[in-house]
This record gives sequence, structure tokens and C-alpha cells, in this order.
Amino acid sequence: MPEIRKDPVTGRWVIIATDRSRRPSDFSRQPVVLKGGRFCPFCPGNEQKTPPEVLAFRQSGGPNEPGWTLRVVPNKFPALRVEGDFDRQGEGLYDKMNGIGAHEVIIETPDHNATLSDMPEKRVEDVFWALRDRFQDLKKDRRMRYILAFKNHGEAAGASLEHTHSQLIALPVVPRRVQEELEGSRRYYEMKERCIFCDIMRQEINTGTRVVLETDYFLVICPYAARFPFEIWILPRRHFSHFEHSDVPTFRNLGWVVPTVLREIDNVLERPAYNAIIHTAPLQDPELLYYHWHIELIPKLTKVAGFEWGTGFYINPTPPEESAKFLRDAGLA
Amino acid sequence: MPEIRKDPVTGRWVIIATDRSRRPSDFSRQPVVLKGGRFCPFCPGNEQKTPPEVLAFRQSGGPNEPGWTLRVVPNKFPALRVEGDFDRQGEGLYDKMNGIGAHEVIIETPDHNATLSDMPEKRVEDVFWALRDRFQDLKKDRRMRYILAFKNHGEAAGASLEHTHSQLIALPVVPRRVQEELEGSRRYYEMKERCIFCDIMRQEINTGTRVVLETDYFLVICPYAARFPFEIWILPRRHFSHFEHSDVPTFRNLGWVVPTVLREIDNVLERPAYNAIIHTAPLQDPELLYYHWHIELIPKLTKVAGFEWGTGFYINPTPPEESAKFLRDAGLA
Repeated sequence: MPEIRKDPVTGRWVIIATDRSRRPSDFSRQPVVLKGGRFCPFCPGNEQKTPPEVLAFRQSGGPNEPGWTLRVVPNKFPALRVEGDFDRQGEGLYDKMNGIGAHEVIIETPDHNATLSDMPEKRVEDVFWALRDRFQDLKKDRRMRYILAFKNHGEAAGASLEHTHSQLIALPVVPRRVQEELEGSRRYYEMKERCIFCDIMRQEINTGTRVVLETDYFLVICPYAARFPFEIWILPRRHFSHFEHSDVPTFRNLGWVVPTVLREIDNVLERPAYNAIIHTAPLQDPELLYYHWHIELIPKLTKVAGFEWGTGFYINPTPPEESAKFLRDAGLA
Repeated sequence: MPEIRKDPVTGRWVIIATDRSRRPSDFSRQPVVLKGGRFCPFCPGNEQKTPPEVLAFRQSGGPNEPGWTLRVVPNKFPALRVEGDFDRQGEGLYDKMNGIGAHEVIIETPDHNATLSDMPEKRVEDVFWALRDRFQDLKKDRRMRYILAFKNHGEAAGASLEHTHSQLIALPVVPRRVQEELEGSRRYYEMKERCIFCDIMRQEINTGTRVVLETDYFLVICPYAARFPFEIWILPRRHFSHFEHSDVPTFRNLGWVVPTVLREIDNVLERPAYNAIIHTAPLQDPELLYYHWHIELIPKLTKVAGFEWGTGFYINPTPPEESAKFLRDAGLA
């Protein structure tokens, strides 16, 4: 009998197909393979082909010269622009404003052939430190209400350049799904005076079946109402509502946890394309007791079909308990 | 300057890239081509390869024999089952229930080589009459709260069998996105005592720039805050909250409007894969003054990347005004 499960944070319902559940080998494999060979604007020596950097970690060289280990540059074709006024206005019953915001690219390594899953721990950690610095800097602009930090890995996941990179988009509005999460977790807090994510972690450690990985600083699980096969949540065990508020040990541990999880999915699913996104509290809010930042990671295995985008209702052909078991059994942690 | 637009019903924000906007030829073309040649359980003569029909329109023959022009059968691998009890229960802080519901397939024609865009008007109309009858029948089961009726056309849109068909899933819950639309339109009604969709239609006819097609019974537009290039809404001009409550002239006109719109997108975008979904009011609700059923149709052109699924925040590279102009200029209406 299939199960209908409710995500405790957002109230989203998901159908979990328990009968004919799909195993890793049932998904069509399209491993992400780096082809190289073409001109790459993210490679050292081509610094002039990107807009001037807004942040770099470097061992030598001056701004926009080689010698960097990580580089943050504005997107050459930004979805939003920093300059100008909102000029909020109506058009009859519609509302619009100018696309004020920021859109930046984090070039994670100078090495065109590296990926987050095989980079040295310190370099992976640096990606998160760079994001933290950009969050802190962009927060000073009080017009910015939310930052979407995300990574598309592989063409199937929407990456247009193969040199490993992440992106951030600073928005003058808080997206609908983020509001939903905030409201859901606030309602829970009002009832229980406990953070729902902290409670989820306690229960998951207790149950064990959906745990992928556990360290002193992170719990990695396949969530109870997973929308997708092998959907993964990476939750910091210490409570911080804002990604950028995390403490040093938490940041340091990301350098080990993230590539370890990525190697597990590479192993079980043959280097799939994936999307990862940081869920965090709105930029201008103070630290909140009821919200808890985390990373959501989704390997690109199924086509999102027909009604999913229209309804927010998902059918997941692989129970999270099975996904978690396959990942645990990869035995890389 | 890019624009940030708000959908007046759901409050969802969308970035519309107005500068480097993408034209139809900028999207990679993967025309849906019927291959045929393989065994097809939906073809006449193979009626025994599907579960027994729950509805058929036929010119000759008995149940589950050839002679039909349209056939509705339970999905052989249903996401939900009709038999059994909900057995709602908690698992610590989680909630679940048994997957009670229905999952049916509407085989739209016996002709393996036909598509909705080239079928006779009367046959297309029949698809909607068949859906209406299934809605009425499933509604009698008071456990069913909502029906998702949708069509995935082409493999890229999630269709696993190429013989043209639609699907419906009857759910014991109202999906999140549907609730959001209902709440948004109710809030508007409380403020104005007018249906927001009726108001949108009035304004769109007045503006004209986003109109694709206009008949006595339907208005076809690219919506103001379109999430995707060439996103299309097909709105009945007479107010009905429930698809199945529509009057006869409205049903009849669907037989012309739907294939005409599909031929326009086939023409402009070279027979793209698409998803279509009926947005309608919850099954057990009475006719509502504030909600207005409609069809949303989305050609599969862009990969939904990184943050869209995580945030409900979309970047649309083609303004709806341009999409609508391309479709109008196809000149097929």
C-alpha cells in the first residue's frame, strides 16, 4: 500500500510508493563527465573574461590575476542588478518592481578538472566561508531581504559551464517557499517552544532508518516526506537560524561532510547531476529560535512531470528509508 | 532592467528577464516524434493488457473490446489505491496515512499516430466530457477531496507511453499549491467582492499584449507573472469554480480552443513536449464565487534549475508579452 506522508515543516503531502519502489539501478544513468577542451572563463589566466572579482582567496597575485584558490565574481548575465531604484508600481491589478538585487558566481577552484566531491577539505570549507563573507557584505544593503545560495552540478541540473561553481542571488523579496517554511516552523515553535528541526534531528537519530551520516556537527538524513528519490538534508546539529551565523567548528566540518555525502551519491548513483540549495532565514531578521538553516540536496534522477510544478504535490518512487540505506551502505563515511 | 513581477493570485514573485530575452529559436529543439512500432497497451485489440475500463465512448463492441473512440482505465501501476482505510497515524512528530485514492488513464483516441493537436474537434471535446464524468463519479466517494487532471506530452515532459493520453489522480487531501490559489483568490474576493480571474480577464482583454486567443467562451493568455517561457493559461470566460460545473457551450468550445493553442505552440516551438494541468476547486466544495477553474499549459523548454524547486521563485527568460506575440503571429486561430 502506498503511503501519503506530510512534511512537518511545510505541510506538503507526498505519495511514497512503497510497493514497486525504484532502486538506484532503475534510474537512467547520465553520469556527469567533465569534457574540458573548450575555452573556460573561470580558468586561471582568463580573469579578464569575467566581471571584476568581489572577493578572492589567493596565495599570490593581485586582484583579477592568477594565484587565487577561490574567486567570487558578478554573473556576466545577471538575473538582477545592484544599481537603480525599485520603482515599485502597479499595472492595473498587477504589481511589479525593477529587478534590483545581486547575482554572483563562486568559482570554487582554479582546477577545471576538480569537483566538490574530490577537492581537498580545506578548499570545500572555503566555499562556505566565501559564501558567508558575501552574505555579510550583501546584508549591509538593507534592500536585500533574502539570499538564495545554490549549486547546479551537471548540465541536466541546469549548469551551463562545467568548471565547478556555485551561485548566489540576493533578492529584495522573500520567496514564497521560504515564507512557507518560516511560517510552519514558527507555528510549531508557538505550540511547543522547541525548534522543529532540532526535534526532527532528535527523532531521526533515535529512529536511525533515515540517517545517512552523523558527525558531532551535522546530521545528514533522507527526510521523512522526501519529494524525490535520494533527496538529502544536511542539518547542522547546533541551532543557527542563519547560515552566516554558524560557528567555526560547524563551518570546518562542512569541508568534510559535503564531499563525503557527494561521494556517496556518486558511488550509489554513478555521478549524477544534482541541485543543492541553502535554506536559511531572511537576511535582515535577527537570529531566530524557531528556524534552523540547512542544505537540501537533490540528485537529478526523475523528470518532474505533469502535476508536480502545478500543485506542489509529489510522487516519490523510492522511500527515504531505502535511499538512506543505499547511501549508508556505500560505506564512505 | 529586469523586472520582478508578482502573481496576483498566489503572491509568487518572478524575475522576468527583459534585456537578453530568449526567442523561440534560442531554445534547444527536441520535437516530440511518435516512433510507433512497439507493442502498445493503449491500441485497439490490446484491451486485455490494461485493467478493465471504468468508462468508454464507443461506436461498436462491448466493454473492453475494440470499437471505442475513448477509453478510461485505472493506471496499471497506480500511485494510489481505492481499496482500504486511511489508517491515519503519527510516527513521532510525523503524520502519514495509507495511499487511498484513484489513478486513471484517459486513452484519448484509438489512433496511435494521433495527437490532441490534430484530432477532430469532437474527439478532443470528448476528452473533457470523459474527465467531467469521471469527476462526477469520483466525487461520490466523500473521501476524495481533489482531482489532479493532467497531461504529459512527450518523453521530456514525463510521458512514458507515446499513445496520446491524459491522467487523473483523485486525492484524499488538497495539495498545497491549490490551497495557496484558493486562499489568494478568496482574499481578493473578500476585499473586492469580485473574482480575481474574471478581473484578470477583463484587464488582459483591455491590454491585449498578453492575449494569445479569444473566443466567446475562452480567453487564452500568457500570464503576467509567467514562470516559464510560453506558459499559457486557458481561462473559461463564464465563471465556474469547478471544471465539472462548466456549461455545454464551454465544453464544446474546448474542442476547438485546445487543439488550436497546441498547433500554435507546435508551430512556434517545433512540437515541444508539454505539461498541461486543470486547476479546479476542491471536489466536495460547492460552486464558489471566488475561484475560477482554468488550464495551465507549459511547454518543456528550459530545465528547471537550482533554486526554483526549493524556493518557488522563478526566472523567466522570455517576457509573456513576447511569448504571446509569437503565438498570435503563428496566425492559426
